[in-house]
Amino acid sequence: MRRVGALIFPGFELLDLFGPLEMFGLLKNDFDLQLVAETTAPVASNQQVSANPDVTITGTNHFDILFVPGGMGTRREVDNLPLLDWIRTTSGSAEYVLSVCTGSLLLAAAGVLDGRRATTNKAAYKTIADQYPQVDWVKQARWVEDGKFITSSGVSAGMDMALGAIALMHDRQTAEKVATWSEYDWHKDKDWDPFARVHDLV
Amino acid sequence: MRRVGALIFPGFELLDLFGPLEMFGLLKNDFDLQLVAETTAPVASNQQVSANPDVTITGTNHFDILFVPGGMGTRREVDNLPLLDWIRTTSGSAEYVLSVCTGSLLLAAAGVLDGRRATTNKAAYKTIADQYPQVDWVKQARWVEDGKFITSSGVSAGMDMALGAIALMHDRQTAEKVATWSEYDWHKDKDWDPFARVHDLV
Repeated sequence: MRRVGALIFPGFELLDLFGPLEMFGLLKNDFDLQLVAETTAPVASNQQVSANPDVTITGTNHFDILFVPGGMGTRREVDNLPLLDWIRTTSGSAEYVLSVCTGSLLLAAAGVLDGRRATTNKAAYKTIADQYPQVDWVKQARWVEDGKFITSSGVSAGMDMALGAIALMHDRQTAEKVATWSEYDWHKDKDWDPFARVHDLV
Repeated sequence: MRRVGALIFPGFELLDLFGPLEMFGLLKNDFDLQLVAETTAPVASNQQVSANPDVTITGTNHFDILFVPGGMGTRREVDNLPLLDWIRTTSGSAEYVLSVCTGSLLLAAAGVLDGRRATTNKAAYKTIADQYPQVDWVKQARWVEDGKFITSSGVSAGMDMALGAIALMHDRQTAEKVATWSEYDWHKDKDWDPFARVHDLV
């Protein structure tokens, strides 16, 4: 059983969070899902609908998997030093660190992606890559694995990455079972990325 | 601006709800998202993570779009007469009625699908079709449109249906913009359904 700490902050993107949590959540005996925020108050997403934190970043919680969604709110959180500190500490002790979309902006701001290969949202790619040149950004990828860091492209890419992570932590068959159960057309190839072309990155 | 009333109940399936709400929610000026439940207390999903109702079924709210997700909880709610009454009344005055996965079980139980073409989760298809023979169930479809009723297959199919509904309510270009923004590989063909074969329905 792996404990997943999914960070939420005001303006997180709804599907960045709940797409992957659907996939992990279907394996109830393997993943324990916990939403983590600065306080226990409900946190409004970029789509207004809110989510309820289970624990706060001030608690002494160990997470096997740190999960960071993206969203417009990341632009404010890059200046939130206590939050970046928490990301740094939690990354250090986690077995895996996952991000979706601009969630990688927070990982980059925390410095944990320095010298690592990573990807992000393709509409925001150029800005983010310019801002954090110490990260080895990959232009065309659905998701990128580098050691314990697994970062995905924008929003929906998180579901493909989550299934990829399940394949890595368990096996391909388990990931395929989850995809079939959720009637999801899994893009198994992590290099599949038509959106890099849409945004003139390749 | 269309007001979306998304019904939630204990044991709703996380992605059934939040996949489509991501798509509608990206068009902030066109859709106003409201979660509706029996009380205002947080409602736990099938993946444990909870959602917060904005309004209750006892309020006098008009919704342009009634949205019903599925999940294990539907098996209990088919016997919840006040909830089925609310579905019937709200369906009557709505411009569109949408369901994802076993959400169509609740619509069928409320009687609003009688004589209509509809689809549902493919693993649960045979049981549901046997239980509600007065509905014209479609075995192989990503989603089915019949008048104001738009019903989708299991879990992930809700995202394809939501984009189809956006194309219907606005235009194809708007739906494609939303898909690109969320880096989603939209299955535009509502007859695309490999999962019907997986479950020996065709």
